Amino acid sequence: MRSSTVRCAVIEKENPETERPDTFLRDSDGQNGSVSSSSSVRVRFEKMIRDAQDSVCEAIERADGGGKFKEDVWSRPGGGGGISRVLQDGAVWEKAGVNVSVVYGLMPPEAYRAAKAAASDQKPGPIPFFAAGISSVLHPKNPFAPTLHFNYRYFETDAPKDSPGAPRQWWFGGGTDLTPAYIFEEDVKHFHLVQKNACDKSDPSFYPRFKKWCDDYFYIKHRGERRGLGGIFFDDLNDYDQEMLLSFATECANSVVPAYIPIIEKRKDMPFTEQHKAWQQLRRGRYVEFNLVYDRGTTFGLKTGGRIESILVSLPLTARWEYDHKPEEGSEEWKLLDACINPKDWI
Amino acid sequence: MRSSTVRCAVIEKENPETERPDTFLRDSDGQNGSVSSSSSVRVRFEKMIRDAQDSVCEAIERADGGGKFKEDVWSRPGGGGGISRVLQDGAVWEKAGVNVSVVYGLMPPEAYRAAKAAASDQKPGPIPFFAAGISSVLHPKNPFAPTLHFNYRYFETDAPKDSPGAPRQWWFGGGTDLTPAYIFEEDVKHFHLVQKNACDKSDPSFYPRFKKWCDDYFYIKHRGERRGLGGIFFDDLNDYDQEMLLSFATECANSVVPAYIPIIEKRKDMPFTEQHKAWQQLRRGRYVEFNLVYDRGTTFGLKTGGRIESILVSLPLTARWEYDHKPEEGSEEWKLLDACINPKDWI
Repeated sequence: MRSSTVRCAVIEKENPETERPDTFLRDSDGQNGSVSSSSSVRVRFEKMIRDAQDSVCEAIERADGGGKFKEDVWSRPGGGGGISRVLQDGAVWEKAGVNVSVVYGLMPPEAYRAAKAAASDQKPGPIPFFAAGISSVLHPKNPFAPTLHFNYRYFETDAPKDSPGAPRQWWFGGGTDLTPAYIFEEDVKHFHLVQKNACDKSDPSFYPRFKKWCDDYFYIKHRGERRGLGGIFFDDLNDYDQEMLLSFATECANSVVPAYIPIIEKRKDMPFTEQHKAWQQLRRGRYVEFNLVYDRGTTFGLKTGGRIESILVSLPLTARWEYDHKPEEGSEEWKLLDACINPKDWI
Repeated sequence: MRSSTVRCAVIEKENPETERPDTFLRDSDGQNGSVSSSSSVRVRFEKMIRDAQDSVCEAIERADGGGKFKEDVWSRPGGGGGISRVLQDGAVWEKAGVNVSVVYGLMPPEAYRAAKAAASDQKPGPIPFFAAGISSVLHPKNPFAPTLHFNYRYFETDAPKDSPGAPRQWWFGGGTDLTPAYIFEEDVKHFHLVQKNACDKSDPSFYPRFKKWCDDYFYIKHRGERRGLGGIFFDDLNDYDQEMLLSFATECANSVVPAYIPIIEKRKDMPFTEQHKAWQQLRRGRYVEFNLVYDRGTTFGLKTGGRIESILVSLPLTARWEYDHKPEEGSEEWKLLDACINPKDWI
């Protein structure tokens, strides 16, 4: 997989900024009129994720009714940067992070597939890459209100100058997935149905394929269970028309609010006991295990020296580990665990 | 490092046992009179770690005054097994785990250094290995009472049958380290002094060397800070007399109680605020980050399919992650963080 091979990618250290720039793109990326077909995808993808950040944050603040997002803007000297927004200790969410970033870097040539096809007597130099994405994790307080994660990203490598014939590469990745501590079937069905509808607009084969990919990806191998109840996930996607994939990613990002907020409205004020809270905390522990041990974005970010606070905002405010905890068979906790061990078709 | 190269080592699945056996060693390992010099180290090391488990658990229960250890015994069909003891929600400790294990397995020949020196036209088979160790993490409730970790282990590979001339290898590893949320200089000095005294009995060069190794090992690279205030750590140690190293490891294990329990007695009943508790929880979050991302024993265990509950008993009962938390300069929290960023000489 590409993201594991670019672990030794080089990116510069970020600087805090006092103002949000109109764009994090370099001038050469086409926002000043010099629009090539591909730079135009960069431009439109950045606009898409920044719009999505605004609309998701607005919907979260409205549903929370109390908490406000704190914004941190950062940039890198050679171009690129990001906007981190975090709402902490709100009325509904204990921690909600919605980040966008635009990153320019260099990856070692061994990590670049097409470079290998070039003449073997030429030693290609490091390959410039471009990556832009929106990434969000929303952890509510109420144990009946589920955690949501979504992430949509676009990646490009420049054509290496010293390997004639090696093409510029690009791909899309992303997904939206739901992690409740307790199952309300109507919620999970609603969530998956919104994902399916978003997928179907581009290709009816997408939902079944990306639903399975999601179940496979969010697998905590050492536990033999998934982090949650899935949704959709895809990566390295480039075997479709680029415009089609851009509009697919846009549709997915726009589906986050209608997929999630109605569930939150129903669950945010449900009464709960200390036992419910303790189980939520144990599931949050699994969330931490998945993110720190397996998640590609997290492990890639930690190893390449990305902005740590933006990367680890995905971790819950609090988590819990009890030795050898086993829910009683047939209990609500057991039903959730069972669905994490044996993924179901929800629609 | 060896432990990262044996990640694809093969070990069998464990079975629960109702009774504690006298030994987890195979008959061929010399406990039935057929004592070769090396099998005798296996026998004596197992006895040492089982005695240490008993005496540490006894001291913990006595100091806790309420909690009792729950014991799980497990074994593997081909030999080996372990005893996990966990005290949860005691009066003083929220989670205390003290585990011993004796493991037989096969590692791929590429992971075995000496095999490489053998004739290159012979393809060596998998190398049998033996590993025995005691491992413990003790997380108290009171934020002024520090977490303690210790681990002592002995590792052997058999001489590969099909690589004549490649020797049997052995080494020792281990260490004891202290992770407080607040610094009491007298506690940290006492702790390090006991480590130094234990080291000095074997070799006066050990303490300075293993103190530095500890500071280097428990480094959370993505944070630029250490997990705690160190102690001693060593690995791959075989360039000394085997008997000397066995008695050194024994001395270290026997020093755990006098190094730690007096500190607990002083701190366990100190009054504290919610702010103190929240800071302890943030530091517990760092503990989780180190263990899941960097700790060799944990990552090795998760990847080779060791007993998950025994491995992850090292995680605290509860932990916390706040976005972009920065302690106020000069505060007690800042002093701890500063000592984690810039390791000090305590004695």
